[in-house]
Amino acid sequence: MSDQGLSYQTAGVDIGESSRAIRAFKDAVRSTFTPSVLSDVGAFGGLFSASFPGIREPVLVSSIDGVGTKTKVAAMVGRFRGLGHDIVNHCVNDILVQGARPLFFLDYIASSKISAEIVADIVEGCAEACRAVDCALIGGETAEMPGVYADKELDLVGSIVGVVEKDSLLPRSDIGNGDLIVGIASDGLHTNGFSLARKALFEVGGRNLNDPVPGTQSTLADALLVPHRSYLAPLWPVLPRVKGLAHITGGGFVENVPRILGAEARAVIERNSWPVPELFRLIQSDGYIADEEMFTAFNMGIGMVAVTASEDAQAIVDHLIEAGERAWIIGEITKGARGANIV
Amino acid sequence: MSDQGLSYQTAGVDIGESSRAIRAFKDAVRSTFTPSVLSDVGAFGGLFSASFPGIREPVLVSSIDGVGTKTKVAAMVGRFRGLGHDIVNHCVNDILVQGARPLFFLDYIASSKISAEIVADIVEGCAEACRAVDCALIGGETAEMPGVYADKELDLVGSIVGVVEKDSLLPRSDIGNGDLIVGIASDGLHTNGFSLARKALFEVGGRNLNDPVPGTQSTLADALLVPHRSYLAPLWPVLPRVKGLAHITGGGFVENVPRILGAEARAVIERNSWPVPELFRLIQSDGYIADEEMFTAFNMGIGMVAVTASEDAQAIVDHLIEAGERAWIIGEITKGARGANIV
Repeated sequence: MSDQGLSYQTAGVDIGESSRAIRAFKDAVRSTFTPSVLSDVGAFGGLFSASFPGIREPVLVSSIDGVGTKTKVAAMVGRFRGLGHDIVNHCVNDILVQGARPLFFLDYIASSKISAEIVADIVEGCAEACRAVDCALIGGETAEMPGVYADKELDLVGSIVGVVEKDSLLPRSDIGNGDLIVGIASDGLHTNGFSLARKALFEVGGRNLNDPVPGTQSTLADALLVPHRSYLAPLWPVLPRVKGLAHITGGGFVENVPRILGAEARAVIERNSWPVPELFRLIQSDGYIADEEMFTAFNMGIGMVAVTASEDAQAIVDHLIEAGERAWIIGEITKGARGANIV
Repeated sequence: MSDQGLSYQTAGVDIGESSRAIRAFKDAVRSTFTPSVLSDVGAFGGLFSASFPGIREPVLVSSIDGVGTKTKVAAMVGRFRGLGHDIVNHCVNDILVQGARPLFFLDYIASSKISAEIVADIVEGCAEACRAVDCALIGGETAEMPGVYADKELDLVGSIVGVVEKDSLLPRSDIGNGDLIVGIASDGLHTNGFSLARKALFEVGGRNLNDPVPGTQSTLADALLVPHRSYLAPLWPVLPRVKGLAHITGGGFVENVPRILGAEARAVIERNSWPVPELFRLIQSDGYIADEEMFTAFNMGIGMVAVTASEDAQAIVDHLIEAGERAWIIGEITKGARGANIV
């Protein structure tokens, strides 16, 4: 042994810090385990029984995603737990649009320098959001990558697997002329558009995180960091009456709604049919951002869109409001080339 | 529309570049689709039939991981395709140690600035490695995160789901005194220890990527970038005779081998029982790195360890050599507190 010798720690990688994080979040992770989980925290891979009673032809639905540069705002404010909710709920919604309920989730956290406290905070946030939707957090990884990440920055990635009865897969193929579009309120930006929002608010607008959002009781920090909303609980009971769901994420209405349409169906969305939250108005005015850009980069106050037969739409809106959501009929499907018009 | 207005592109996020990447890698991704895949490239989530003929009690095994700062070496050399092999094979090996064969894989690539060429190269590498092990690449995400990643740096994350018959789960619980340890050769560092290796070779040792590795025909760039080896094909036929497998990743022998042992079993590994490749010797001498640190940070030339009954060990080594691997009996299991001794 040489005192001058290099070690992993002098190279900027501290394995001990990851171990400390695991000890801190272990109980929270275990609290998400459903009876199908067959492994404990720390196994090479997570084990999950592939038995799905009551489902005749089970189909696994999987997705992977990150939270984008919302991590930068979290780092600026020093508040990380909500990011765990963000990534879990983002993933839950992504597979819900295919009709699936979540089975299990895995997280990946990487940074230039791992902090046990921050990792534990994020993973505990993931565990809270997983518990709320009966999803098991069965695996994860932390990586310390000096030189790859900018100082004090981190990325958070989640991967989810859910299950759906093959016959119940969404979207259905019968979306067409006359169907109505129901929009369900988002809780702010969710996890999309943060690079543009930060540029507009902080660089062009010169605002600070502690500034209020005009017309609200909220600071910018609070408004930006509200976690991504999960639509599983309110939508699950009405899924049999839904023809298709579009999760309004990167690409906004313009790119996401057409993904559930056939070649000859076009969505017409009436922009005045719901109240666009003040935060989006502020971003648009600070950044002098064109309307079309706003509807491509942001959810504009609608986190999930459901397409239903015209006769079902109002009942679904009523159910959603009953379930604690804010929801509106925001447009309809017409004949035309696949796409979306915001009118 | 204002000419001075911000757009996602002026904020440093180019959605068009991601679309170009998808067009470039789409065919490669489709070429990995097994008959169980029910979705196409670009769906919200990947769909995979949960029907496992021939398996009585299927258990899903899942894992998520990254390739660490091997990405930095790839970026220095400008050669990215191998990273796709790295992440797929790393994940394949991680679930193989529980006895599982891969079903499907998802990738996540994030960078300060997305390059369609680099993303396509990585995803095509993932597709090649997936095809080689009959694993479907059913989803992925690219994220452009200016300010989170250092300039020109990227991270690559993979998530895998496999399946195993519950009765065939590894490790078995009967690993004990007198069992032998078989080591299978790695192809270099695989995806672990890069921060320490770079510091030793480039900062302390003052070497360049084009320098030769002494005693070999290889440059440092080539030796460092050899992809992670998959052990699925050579090990699959002998898995019924294997009691436990340990994938030698972060934490090296010291941390990974004990993970498959009961409380009263200890691994004794004879360091002279296989040839430690020149690359590891060079890293150690350049960085003045202690032996123990080497065996904790690096695989030291052994990528996978199999524990077998003493009477099976030589036949398994013979099979592995027949299958094109290099393999040795490198130690044995003794009574003692759970752990590993390198002697």
